[in-house]
Amino acid sequence: MRNLDQYNITQAVLARLAQTPDPRLKQIMTSLVQHLHAFAREVRLTEDEWKRGIDFLTATGHTCTDQRQEFILLSDTLGLSMLTVAMNNDKPAGCTEATVFGPFHVEGAPVVEQGADVANGAPGEPCLVRGRVRGLGGEPVAGAEIDVWQADADGLYDVQRPDLPHHQGRAVLHSAEDGGFHFRSVVAEPYPIPDDGPVGEMLRATARHPWRPAHLHFMIKAPGYETLVTHVFRDGDPYLDSDAVFGVRQSLVAQWVRQADGLTTLDFDFVLNPVKKTT
Amino acid sequence: MRNLDQYNITQAVLARLAQTPDPRLKQIMTSLVQHLHAFAREVRLTEDEWKRGIDFLTATGHTCTDQRQEFILLSDTLGLSMLTVAMNNDKPAGCTEATVFGPFHVEGAPVVEQGADVANGAPGEPCLVRGRVRGLGGEPVAGAEIDVWQADADGLYDVQRPDLPHHQGRAVLHSAEDGGFHFRSVVAEPYPIPDDGPVGEMLRATARHPWRPAHLHFMIKAPGYETLVTHVFRDGDPYLDSDAVFGVRQSLVAQWVRQADGLTTLDFDFVLNPVKKTT
Repeated sequence: MRNLDQYNITQAVLARLAQTPDPRLKQIMTSLVQHLHAFAREVRLTEDEWKRGIDFLTATGHTCTDQRQEFILLSDTLGLSMLTVAMNNDKPAGCTEATVFGPFHVEGAPVVEQGADVANGAPGEPCLVRGRVRGLGGEPVAGAEIDVWQADADGLYDVQRPDLPHHQGRAVLHSAEDGGFHFRSVVAEPYPIPDDGPVGEMLRATARHPWRPAHLHFMIKAPGYETLVTHVFRDGDPYLDSDAVFGVRQSLVAQWVRQADGLTTLDFDFVLNPVKKTT
Repeated sequence: MRNLDQYNITQAVLARLAQTPDPRLKQIMTSLVQHLHAFAREVRLTEDEWKRGIDFLTATGHTCTDQRQEFILLSDTLGLSMLTVAMNNDKPAGCTEATVFGPFHVEGAPVVEQGADVANGAPGEPCLVRGRVRGLGGEPVAGAEIDVWQADADGLYDVQRPDLPHHQGRAVLHSAEDGGFHFRSVVAEPYPIPDDGPVGEMLRATARHPWRPAHLHFMIKAPGYETLVTHVFRDGDPYLDSDAVFGVRQSLVAQWVRQADGLTTLDFDFVLNPVKKTT
């Protein structure tokens, strides 16, 4: 394998992958190399452009910390995250739809009781969130683990406030016997994704705005059901049709309602897909 | 743009790139998104695999330092570097061929006189390297900047020895009036690319060896000529046909010869491609 040129190098690289023991990894690497090379060939990538690509990926990696995941943000803004979610969550009609996970989830959020204020001091208009977790057959799902996280009225998640001594706007609670849950928080507001790093640079260079429509994140787990990762979006938001990460599903748009007594409420039920039984 | 699914999301992302002011960036981003999505669709990427990809890229970024460029290593081992070099260096017959830049070049290597020992203490068998820099028409190229770098007998570049107080195995010298150059160094030996990081993990998972055949790196610049980035490989090396980074050109393979007086010599001439005149 000497004298590889722009025409035969792809086959040479694929041949080098031929002994990969794991057939799935071999399939993935083979497809990756083919598309990577096809991209470079299609645009006739120059050496300067290659170097800028290397620098961009390096800067993206260096922007990743325990508190910030710039590669997820890149995947989100290129639509790869939503594509992957869509391919893997083709649930039956009636189930709550999934959407992107996003870069702001934190393991080990505080476990709270029903009715707790998950805002925990985060600025914003107080509200009450309530609903039920059910299975596709309508059955209540008791004891479901409901992991919720959200940005505050300033458009920031707690992890974006480096001096904060405790979690804000995130918690884990469990559904009651009838599947019900309720907690207090602050009303979600639209916010720009972090655009002071390489992804922000990419958005500016492509004349894109960084805004996401207001939403709450949920990850709901219960034995016997597929884990649901989703958002609830706020109706009327100006960015519902141009979400920077392509995550909006019409079925996930809901209304935060100002009640007569002055309290703002969000009612939303989640429907989980039972895990297929293997016989 | 709500309810994007696995079929229409690619078009939605491309539409979002439509206002990119720079037409070349628009072309590159459009092709990149199409191939990225086509890859994910072709292998039906799972959410776990997506997460492993994010983790791999993050670890690759975190492995990059001022002394180590893991993304270049990744590009090299996936054949993208050699593909890019091949597409952009289609020189006329008679010119010295180009090959990969690699991750070990350092800006600001010491400028030395002809005849200097560029090994500067690096372990290895002493040798003399000599040759001429010429243009395609045969004309001598005087004052060409010859940037040379190499691994030592332990298979390490100086930047891989963190406690080293000075450069070893790298220098910049200039060709004489007749295009001639000569310097002393140590004989190049085959070596494994750094495989204690994510790229090494990828090589092991795909049952690939990390070895590169013995070589000297050269970058040669002279006014009026295209910059040449290339290697000289050592004839007889066991890895010439399975270079981990796909960089071998037969025309770049040369012999280090043990002379009667015990000195080992390498003779190699470089032929530069004149820059095309624009009228």
